[in-house]
Amino acid sequence: MQDLTPADALACDPQLAAAIRRAIDGKTKPLGALGRIEDLAARIAALKGTTEPSVETCELIIFAGDHGIAAQGVSAFPQAVTAQMALNFLAGGAAANVFARATGVDLKVVDTGIAEAIDHPDLIDRRMGPGTADSSQGPAMTPGTLAKAIAAGRALAEGSEAHALAFGEMGIANTASASLVIHKLSGLPLDLLTGRGTGLDDAGLTRKLAVLERAAARTGALTAEQALAEYGGFEIAMMAGAMIGAAGLRKVVLVDGFIATAAAMAARALEPGCEPAFVYCHRSAELGHRAALDHLGGQALLELDLRLGEGTGALLAWPLVKSAAAMLREMASFESAGVSGKL
Amino acid sequence: MQDLTPADALACDPQLAAAIRRAIDGKTKPLGALGRIEDLAARIAALKGTTEPSVETCELIIFAGDHGIAAQGVSAFPQAVTAQMALNFLAGGAAANVFARATGVDLKVVDTGIAEAIDHPDLIDRRMGPGTADSSQGPAMTPGTLAKAIAAGRALAEGSEAHALAFGEMGIANTASASLVIHKLSGLPLDLLTGRGTGLDDAGLTRKLAVLERAAARTGALTAEQALAEYGGFEIAMMAGAMIGAAGLRKVVLVDGFIATAAAMAARALEPGCEPAFVYCHRSAELGHRAALDHLGGQALLELDLRLGEGTGALLAWPLVKSAAAMLREMASFESAGVSGKL
Repeated sequence: MQDLTPADALACDPQLAAAIRRAIDGKTKPLGALGRIEDLAARIAALKGTTEPSVETCELIIFAGDHGIAAQGVSAFPQAVTAQMALNFLAGGAAANVFARATGVDLKVVDTGIAEAIDHPDLIDRRMGPGTADSSQGPAMTPGTLAKAIAAGRALAEGSEAHALAFGEMGIANTASASLVIHKLSGLPLDLLTGRGTGLDDAGLTRKLAVLERAAARTGALTAEQALAEYGGFEIAMMAGAMIGAAGLRKVVLVDGFIATAAAMAARALEPGCEPAFVYCHRSAELGHRAALDHLGGQALLELDLRLGEGTGALLAWPLVKSAAAMLREMASFESAGVSGKL
Repeated sequence: MQDLTPADALACDPQLAAAIRRAIDGKTKPLGALGRIEDLAARIAALKGTTEPSVETCELIIFAGDHGIAAQGVSAFPQAVTAQMALNFLAGGAAANVFARATGVDLKVVDTGIAEAIDHPDLIDRRMGPGTADSSQGPAMTPGTLAKAIAAGRALAEGSEAHALAFGEMGIANTASASLVIHKLSGLPLDLLTGRGTGLDDAGLTRKLAVLERAAARTGALTAEQALAEYGGFEIAMMAGAMIGAAGLRKVVLVDGFIATAAAMAARALEPGCEPAFVYCHRSAELGHRAALDHLGGQALLELDLRLGEGTGALLAWPLVKSAAAMLREMASFESAGVSGKL
């Protein structure tokens, strides 16, 4: 993998850190009055290595893929919905499309391995197969396929010209996959990580947890690569690769909900240097997201009880990220504006 | 005042309420998966009286004015900053300008009564005087001036073509004024409503609270008009009028922080029918905002520890409001997109 200069190191460079703090404190506002927007601006400035970061454009890449474990009845919706929703994205009718238009974000859709292949001129074909294998029975994918998926994700992110990248996903049963990946990476108990997904009832949730416990018991302690190959979705693996690729180019990475957080956790395990690029955009209502974020030490910007995925939470947080960077670049200082300081 | 059909009544119209719920539930997403964005969309739809509301444009009006009570040393910054910041808004360098550009919002600046008059072609002159009188000694303004300020605010809002209006303010010592107005309108104790404003230290906060207690003791129970005339700032009174004017035209009203919440509380007391237009955009770090919002029953969309005013919190919430309305208007239904429902 490409060698990253961790932005953490930059942030800890005393000269740059002090310059960023001075720049923020010199803006025409009481000290600290922009609260968490100031913290966000400081992180972005450290990532970009400048007190005047340009973060003006954002692209959302939605990774769609199917999951063999769906056959175990772990989702409230039929598997066909993955393909149907991919077509909905391509037609511009999904929530992600609406929010992307409202927030000025470009949107791409990638087929990472939908069960039935779709023919559409705008769909980016990175098919790793017709869905993963059923991870309650055996590995979801081979190590070779995993490496291919990660590389494909990296290349997609590296090919983007946007300053910030948001990643979304679509895949029936992918909360099951995310729970297993997070469980193996974090050691958090499965019952804390297993939620209702698209809307399981109590009986469905009990069944899902039993399936996941059986699946998890197939293996012991795993590396990040092993966890992704055993339990990952193609879309989770490709998203993890894309996060690493984006962070390597010092793009801001907008981390969406539960599934994107599984990808972020895997990306960080594979490449610790990418963490400083991550902005945890929202805390989802899906059970397990809070525990996963706490494990990562990530504080979400928004708490709106979203549990849709697709990148919708990342899209709604994008204006905050853009505004934080613009604050550093465009806002006047007490000196430049001739505004008096504190008494 | 113009007769309002309260949107509450509309929201309670069983046919419209059911149609709105059906429209939201029919969108291509699991039931309830957009959480508070769905609630926001439902409120906007009820306000607009349609399942396909158009809320695509927003304007921020910043009301600037000075306060006689500043002479009592209740602010950490000198009074001259009100005029200096008004010039900063007009030059495009303040946080509100930066966020307005980042979120696609137009911005206007109104002089409601800055101590020293400013000459600038873009400044809207609605001067009610060179700052209010010192409300720790006597009424801040006469009932006649109050009526003029409210009417001016209404007219400004009614003259706007934007679908949504955000209101900001600038005025050294205006957290003191807002605390007094909220105290008299809500009955909440002053020590729960008196915070550090732009950054008072402990001694300053103690002094501010003593000044406010003396000021409050001048009067007994007050009507909303009396509370505004006794303790209000020109900018708070004009903002309250603008909120009533905007709500009367069924524009969405984006309520910013502590001072804007004082104006919203006054507007609601003057004209109960305007409440359904209000979106409480964020919960400020200023002590007292939480209690004031709880009193109004308002749940803020954002919690980012902002305490700047100027409309900055409202601007950061605007993309959420725009996205919520767009969801209803633009998002495909299960039926229209041919997506399968729940198993």
